[in-house]
Amino acid sequence: MISQQLEQLLKAYKEGRMNLEMTITGIKNKLKEEDLGFAKIDHQRTLRNGFPEVIFGQGKSTKQVVSIVASLVSVGSTVLVTRTSEDVYKVLSSKYPNCEFNELAKTIVLPAGEIKPTGGKVAVLSAGTADLPVAEEASVTAEVMGNQVEKIYDVGVAGIHRLFNRLDQICKADVVIAVAGMEGALASVTAGLIDKPVIAVPTSIGYGANFGGLAALLAMLNSCATGIGVVNIDNGFGAAALATKIINLKKNNKNQ
Amino acid sequence: MISQQLEQLLKAYKEGRMNLEMTITGIKNKLKEEDLGFAKIDHQRTLRNGFPEVIFGQGKSTKQVVSIVASLVSVGSTVLVTRTSEDVYKVLSSKYPNCEFNELAKTIVLPAGEIKPTGGKVAVLSAGTADLPVAEEASVTAEVMGNQVEKIYDVGVAGIHRLFNRLDQICKADVVIAVAGMEGALASVTAGLIDKPVIAVPTSIGYGANFGGLAALLAMLNSCATGIGVVNIDNGFGAAALATKIINLKKNNKNQ
Amino acid sequence: MISQQLEQLLKAYKEGRMNLEMTITGIKNKLKEEDLGFAKIDHQRTLRNGFPEVIFGQGKSTKQVVSIVASLVSVGSTVLVTRTSEDVYKVLSSKYPNCEFNELAKTIVLPAGEIKPTGGKVAVLSAGTADLPVAEEASVTAEVMGNQVEKIYDVGVAGIHRLFNRLDQICKADVVIAVAGMEGALASVTAGLIDKPVIAVPTSIGYGANFGGLAALLAMLNSCATGIGVVNIDNGFGAAALATKIINLKKNNKNQ
Amino acid sequence: MISQQLEQLLKAYKEGRMNLEMTITGIKNKLKEEDLGFAKIDHQRTLRNGFPEVIFGQGKSTKQVVSIVASLVSVGSTVLVTRTSEDVYKVLSSKYPNCEFNELAKTIVLPAGEIKPTGGKVAVLSAGTADLPVAEEASVTAEVMGNQVEKIYDVGVAGIHRLFNRLDQICKADVVIAVAGMEGALASVTAGLIDKPVIAVPTSIGYGANFGGLAALLAMLNSCATGIGVVNIDNGFGAAALATKIINLKKNNKNQ
Amino acid sequence: MISQQLEQLLKAYKEGRMNLEMTITGIKNKLKEEDLGFAKIDHQRTLRNGFPEVIFGQGKSTKQVVSIVASLVSVGSTVLVTRTSEDVYKVLSSKYPNCEFNELAKTIVLPAGEIKPTGGKVAVLSAGTADLPVAEEASVTAEVMGNQVEKIYDVGVAGIHRLFNRLDQICKADVVIAVAGMEGALASVTAGLIDKPVIAVPTSIGYGANFGGLAALLAMLNSCATGIGVVNIDNGFGAAALATKIINLKKNNKNQ
Amino acid sequence: MISQQLEQLLKAYKEGRMNLEMTITGIKNKLKEEDLGFAKIDHQRTLRNGFPEVIFGQGKSTKQVVSIVASLVSVGSTVLVTRTSEDVYKVLSSKYPNCEFNELAKTIVLPAGEIKPTGGKVAVLSAGTADLPVAEEASVTAEVMGNQVEKIYDVGVAGIHRLFNRLDQICKADVVIAVAGMEGALASVTAGLIDKPVIAVPTSIGYGANFGGLAALLAMLNSCATGIGVVNIDNGFGAAALATKIINLKKNNKNQ
Amino acid sequence: MISQQLEQLLKAYKEGRMNLEMTITGIKNKLKEEDLGFAKIDHQRTLRNGFPEVIFGQGKSTKQVVSIVASLVSVGSTVLVTRTSEDVYKVLSSKYPNCEFNELAKTIVLPAGEIKPTGGKVAVLSAGTADLPVAEEASVTAEVMGNQVEKIYDVGVAGIHRLFNRLDQICKADVVIAVAGMEGALASVTAGLIDKPVIAVPTSIGYGANFGGLAALLAMLNSCATGIGVVNIDNGFGAAALATKIINLKKNNKNQ
Amino acid sequence: MISQQLEQLLKAYKEGRMNLEMTITGIKNKLKEEDLGFAKIDHQRTLRNGFPEVIFGQGKSTKQVVSIVASLVSVGSTVLVTRTSEDVYKVLSSKYPNCEFNELAKTIVLPAGEIKPTGGKVAVLSAGTADLPVAEEASVTAEVMGNQVEKIYDVGVAGIHRLFNRLDQICKADVVIAVAGMEGALASVTAGLIDKPVIAVPTSIGYGANFGGLAALLAMLNSCATGIGVVNIDNGFGAAALATKIINLKKNNKNQ
Repeated sequence: MISQQLEQLLKAYKEGRMNLEMTITGIKNKLKEEDLGFAKIDHQRTLRNGFPEVIFGQGKSTKQVVSIVASLVSVGSTVLVTRTSEDVYKVLSSKYPNCEFNELAKTIVLPAGEIKPTGGKVAVLSAGTADLPVAEEASVTAEVMGNQVEKIYDVGVAGIHRLFNRLDQICKADVVIAVAGMEGALASVTAGLIDKPVIAVPTSIGYGANFGGLAALLAMLNSCATGIGVVNIDNGFGAAALATKIINLKKNNKNQ
Repeated sequence: MISQQLEQLLKAYKEGRMNLEMTITGIKNKLKEEDLGFAKIDHQRTLRNGFPEVIFGQGKSTKQVVSIVASLVSVGSTVLVTRTSEDVYKVLSSKYPNCEFNELAKTIVLPAGEIKPTGGKVAVLSAGTADLPVAEEASVTAEVMGNQVEKIYDVGVAGIHRLFNRLDQICKADVVIAVAGMEGALASVTAGLIDKPVIAVPTSIGYGANFGGLAALLAMLNSCATGIGVVNIDNGFGAAALATKIINLKKNNKNQ
Repeated sequence: MISQQLEQLLKAYKEGRMNLEMTITGIKNKLKEEDLGFAKIDHQRTLRNGFPEVIFGQGKSTKQVVSIVASLVSVGSTVLVTRTSEDVYKVLSSKYPNCEFNELAKTIVLPAGEIKPTGGKVAVLSAGTADLPVAEEASVTAEVMGNQVEKIYDVGVAGIHRLFNRLDQICKADVVIAVAGMEGALASVTAGLIDKPVIAVPTSIGYGANFGGLAALLAMLNSCATGIGVVNIDNGFGAAALATKIINLKKNNKNQ
Repeated sequence: MISQQLEQLLKAYKEGRMNLEMTITGIKNKLKEEDLGFAKIDHQRTLRNGFPEVIFGQGKSTKQVVSIVASLVSVGSTVLVTRTSEDVYKVLSSKYPNCEFNELAKTIVLPAGEIKPTGGKVAVLSAGTADLPVAEEASVTAEVMGNQVEKIYDVGVAGIHRLFNRLDQICKADVVIAVAGMEGALASVTAGLIDKPVIAVPTSIGYGANFGGLAALLAMLNSCATGIGVVNIDNGFGAAALATKIINLKKNNKNQ
Repeated sequence: MISQQLEQLLKAYKEGRMNLEMTITGIKNKLKEEDLGFAKIDHQRTLRNGFPEVIFGQGKSTKQVVSIVASLVSVGSTVLVTRTSEDVYKVLSSKYPNCEFNELAKTIVLPAGEIKPTGGKVAVLSAGTADLPVAEEASVTAEVMGNQVEKIYDVGVAGIHRLFNRLDQICKADVVIAVAGMEGALASVTAGLIDKPVIAVPTSIGYGANFGGLAALLAMLNSCATGIGVVNIDNGFGAAALATKIINLKKNNKNQ
Repeated sequence: MISQQLEQLLKAYKEGRMNLEMTITGIKNKLKEEDLGFAKIDHQRTLRNGFPEVIFGQGKSTKQVVSIVASLVSVGSTVLVTRTSEDVYKVLSSKYPNCEFNELAKTIVLPAGEIKPTGGKVAVLSAGTADLPVAEEASVTAEVMGNQVEKIYDVGVAGIHRLFNRLDQICKADVVIAVAGMEGALASVTAGLIDKPVIAVPTSIGYGANFGGLAALLAMLNSCATGIGVVNIDNGFGAAALATKIINLKKNNKNQ
Repeated sequence: MISQQLEQLLKAYKEGRMNLEMTITGIKNKLKEEDLGFAKIDHQRTLRNGFPEVIFGQGKSTKQVVSIVASLVSVGSTVLVTRTSEDVYKVLSSKYPNCEFNELAKTIVLPAGEIKPTGGKVAVLSAGTADLPVAEEASVTAEVMGNQVEKIYDVGVAGIHRLFNRLDQICKADVVIAVAGMEGALASVTAGLIDKPVIAVPTSIGYGANFGGLAALLAMLNSCATGIGVVNIDNGFGAAALATKIINLKKNNKNQ
Repeated sequence: MISQQLEQLLKAYKEGRMNLEMTITGIKNKLKEEDLGFAKIDHQRTLRNGFPEVIFGQGKSTKQVVSIVASLVSVGSTVLVTRTSEDVYKVLSSKYPNCEFNELAKTIVLPAGEIKPTGGKVAVLSAGTADLPVAEEASVTAEVMGNQVEKIYDVGVAGIHRLFNRLDQICKADVVIAVAGMEGALASVTAGLIDKPVIAVPTSIGYGANFGGLAALLAMLNSCATGIGVVNIDNGFGAAALATKIINLKKNNKNQ
């Protein structure tokens, strides 16, 4: 069935109904589409997004994760597993000894060759100690996607001198990821101080009227500062992926 | 009926079943209790709280407000009307020419003699231009209750240098009232910079995911800084009343 | 007082405690700080952000808007007034005949000289006719900030062929702004099709369980596609400002 | 008491006060009503709805489930247990060796004779791997109710080509069940592409601002596409039951 | 440009890459696509959905509505305008004297030739007098889409005998639309009594803890009865459109 | 200190400042007030309310419960422990062999002499099997407070004939307690059928958009039937206590 | 059709399938059922509930109200219109000069003969001046239903001596209705002081985090005092109707 | 790096660009700043706030807590660990035998020398037994910060005589902390009785419509009494810290 579809794709290209780029994407999709029974893996995402393969580990059994990893490794992708556990790591590391577990971020990285640098720099800011798991998820993701990462942790606004002490470093980044729970004010204060895009990540850190991160989320959406894009609560991965897409704009420009 | 109750109060005091302070309060309550049909006015509040009489104007007809004012003025109280309108002012000013209308705060003050100073200083901070009505309600209230008021407006965290330029003034206050809508970060940043109690007033200013002030309210309740007490959304009056109770502690202490 | 502060700034620079950029910003702040009584205008924002001056018109009286405009025009800024009305326009246009009113977006632009192009292209997508006011606010803002704008309206996912018919145009943009109310699916579908950053703007369009834009907001935050940054409900201005900050990264890179 | 009620029912029919259909239902109700102490089992539901007996397992002890199953099996019903566990299955399978456990769906089916086919086809779509438990509950239910089921899993809108690759299959179904968590856009996109009724099942899959499925639920209710009926979050069973009622319309029509 | 696309569509069909039905739809789309500047009208929807053209009037100016109507009438469509006003009707009726305004439903119908009957019957139930506008919107829509409509109004569960008095009529319908505000129990009770699919429409009728229809919406989603699909609050139109899609299944079957 | 207070109470009575009833209550309060360190037990509640002593077990340690029970038993009260566990029962029963554990309701009753009958009858209705724990808590409470209890379980509105089959019994009760989760329609339907006060108890039974009982709670508050008073979610105890207060009105009347 | 139904009812009774009471109700229903086109008026409610006829005026046009009133007056009912306006009153009073308008409560009463006293007393408490409209709705309703009403207004807990001053009166009531907005504490405090059932009516009075009465509603549902039944926000009518049902228990008892 | 920064600070002071107070703070910050890898400990907070060092234990591993404690003890601070566990206590007490664990409050205190008294008195009120953990957290914190603490527990408003019995004690405090779950009325009633500032702490105690403390939180924010500042749900620590800042005002005043 797939060869038939390929034939059509090529014909379509030859007859001018499809442009070069889309034909290539199409061919890649066809070649790589596999059905593991429980999930269709998007091998082509790597090529389309310039990203490694990412497995969202939450809600998947160890067996499922191992099976998807095997499929991805077989085609030579760097693999990032997020929201996973030490148990999964133990199983994977027996098979892939070079895989790396980040205990805070709960991520596993299986590198495949050199990571192609984006040439961009991402500053990952976090407000408090308790925000570190999310900040680390953002940092690991940004690194594995080829960015230089500057970690600027524990700079919450209750002691604002800590943020100011690090302003020089922050200003040198292309994109800033501001990770904060509780009242989430870090995003507003940072965006008011610098000219770069700020990606705000509310975290579910806090208690009481925090309501699982709602307080920080609303604060970030209502920021009085401009230049802030908000991602989902605790979504360190998503923030880093967005940062990479932004930096790729700059990179592509260089090559023009 | 009232004389009978008084008799009991006095007997109770004589027989030692009631202490001096409570007997006095009781007598005042009895003497002043009047029934206007639609509201029992707490004349004794002035004495108990060291406050002027306050009429919450919202939802009351002009006629109702005028009638309550008349009752209060007759016993010599300074009167503060909040959440009122220019229409009410026009009616009142024809009768009480010295009453003052604050157009932003929508307050009317009818002074009765000198205001007894508390000896304390309240700094009222506001984040943006749109927060001014609430900030002014707090300022008017704090002044009419005998405090010295320092207005430090338009110091929102998106341009944090504006706040820092005023830090000297802020530090000299006994109590700081931080009025902010949108993400409400002003309270956290301020409380992290100073040692004084901060009363946070979320405002309903903003749009979209602000949800009528909920965003700022949650942010203030979840502040990572210590020393913040939060009042209801847009409750400038309540913030000033709390500030006055706090300052009265200090004042009473002086007299010890 | 200001001259004294300037002196300090220069000394600080001379002694190497402050870098060139921050010293310049500092000087500008000092020179331009003015107090109009109800708002401190950040003249320096233009320079810091590469943005025109923006006045958020909602909740301000015509008199207030005119007064702020006069102050800004006097220093030669291009001025953008958002969330304003035809009434304000009538007053302003009598004084500044070249100002432009966008009826849908409810914006007024007072141009001051040529707008400096960013060299970037922003595609503004909208799902339905009713989302147009927000989409237009984004478009006007993006244009006045120097971007080339491609308007791709009425491409909601209920008739997905409409979106596909415009994919070529969308792919040529540097940044995509996806404006959608109701179920807000436009952002997810678009981000799944292209490699560029997508700024999602939920709108309050809809009824019933839309809850003032909450439905679209939550959908956009929970997108299964990567590369989406969300701004506040109906915040077309904020989306365009973020897009410009992103594009400026690329532009700055060109000049390196 | 029951025989007395039956007598009345028959008299009522004879005298024309009750039509044929209602009398039959009434008799069935009376004959089968049993009181197990903790639940009255609606044996008559099978006949009224053309459905097997269904036990909602959540919150019931293994002992309770076994007791209800025994009662139902004794009258020859096919039994479907939803939201159950492997533990319950182990107990039941020792007694009823032909019962089937679906590990993903957490369902047990105890077949009783041939399932009477409805002659209809239900396509069950799911957005992501994590939505499978709910999708499988819908599939198992639809099958046990006599429908032909086409499973079209992992076709979320972030990679919309996956959905399009399966459009042919989807179009052949009478009713489509669209199961999706996160932003729930699958329902809108599908309903915009086909002419058949779409039953949307939001799932609680996701995190952060997903709020237990609220995001997907609101998105589906606010769909800009027509022809969507929404069921409760995670209610795969309810979606299949509704699909069967719809398909029975068609079937009944055939027999007219 | 369009002719070129058509050519491709035909070629695609000839070469077997596209089936008959999709090719026809494609051709229709191309032929009819028009751009009114503010909205792309989906002329092809009529053909795809067997529906008249529908204009959602809310948020559109009279001028916009009139312009869209003109475009639709020119291609011979029956037009339904929902959420409109008497003012729009006055303008339209001067131009199209045969158009019909439903004061309760706030709908306008401009008939174009005979409506093709679906052969199905829809019962529209409403709980109280105040739910009538939504019930009427459903009834008008269902009729203009070719269904026979049985209106069974004011049968709320507080006086359940009213519902039972009408059960005979209800049982004869193919699909039941249950419109209810307040506690929304009508849907559950009805679905428990009959075997047909029930489309539940929560209304925003009520006050206090009704929260704009949320109470009825949640009740309907949590129904203990099976066979209920819920649409958005106040969405009478959507309920009728879904009912029509369901009935078309039956109709198509007849023709097989 | 207590003897001094008593003296005052008696003096007050003698001098006519306190009526007989209040003096008695006062004396009881004084005599029985004990401080266990972690809770002041209201021994006088029994007398004031005609209720047994009730211990809310949730959040209290076994040790705390045993200690409070001992204190209450020592003064001869019947004791009801709600929201407790089998573990607490095991400890208590070793000391008080006649105490009774209700496994569904999670209540323990320690009877002390005959319960004084109220002479009233309470019908406790429940919608589904899963609502039984709450219904049983109401039943146990109502019984221990001296009411005759009629349990009418599993009469949810999805099979409304089950409710009608029991109407005779329901009509004989003085007060009806309607316990229901999911859509909570049982309260509305029942209140529409009978003339007696209905106390509605929403339960947290359900899933998805049930939101922990919110759906049933809102439905009950918005009932279109009159004569319903709502208590907190899962508050079977509170419903029975209210029912008893209502029945006591009737009883007191008998004695007049 | 109706005579046919009556025949059946009588036969059913004769044959013993229906008891006396239900047959009477049935006959009344049949005799009085009228269809005004937009609402079926429940004439029989009066007889069933011992209530006057009540028209919920909100959302009904003056014309609709007048039409329903005429229908009800024609059968000799006392009529209560709630949530109406002075405009409706003006129209009605021209036709029925003895009708009475309560400006605060926004109610109209059209008396028909003597109101039959229940023999019970209802105390209506309100916390503040702004709660009066709801308290008056409760008072008017309770009176028109035959109860003696004691109005105890402006006894909010911020000045708790006001409540205590009225305790004697409160204790003499059979049922207490506690009307309060803001923090709604009046219900808890009152229920803790007396032995009678308390019906709590949250009002939407307040601002900010009051969220339209949600604050008071939640407070009343979570009361730590027993014996409280809660009705919908602002539902003064519902509280009085429930009070009457409770009092009727007592009355019926007297007659036994 | 630090010595370099100090040099700058001193120079800045010498040249008059920094005042004495800020220079001292700056030097303290620099000297004490340490980086433990996962958190920057604010040693200077003690000095700035007059507080002991506080470690928020929730979400931190035992290892992390021990490491931070060691760092703090090394500089001679009194340390308070909140939201910790007996397990952490066991580890700490083996190293620091004089540390004290409060089982209810889940706090550990490691005293370092005498605590400097503030000279103020804090009354901590709690409504019920279940609120004790939060009340104890407030009490422990207030004590360790140098205040005299008066514990007035179990004085909820359902038995208001308990509160009145303790009024004398309450009146002697400078600041009152009112801890209450459920309907949270304790704060309003208390603030209405006394002249001192009341800090309201809602607790998550309760069930059902309590929604994790939301009910009490909203009640406290909407209090009809003046002089209340609200902190986050369950934030006993925050209340005590605010109380201390308030009391320090008074203390500082004494020294003037």
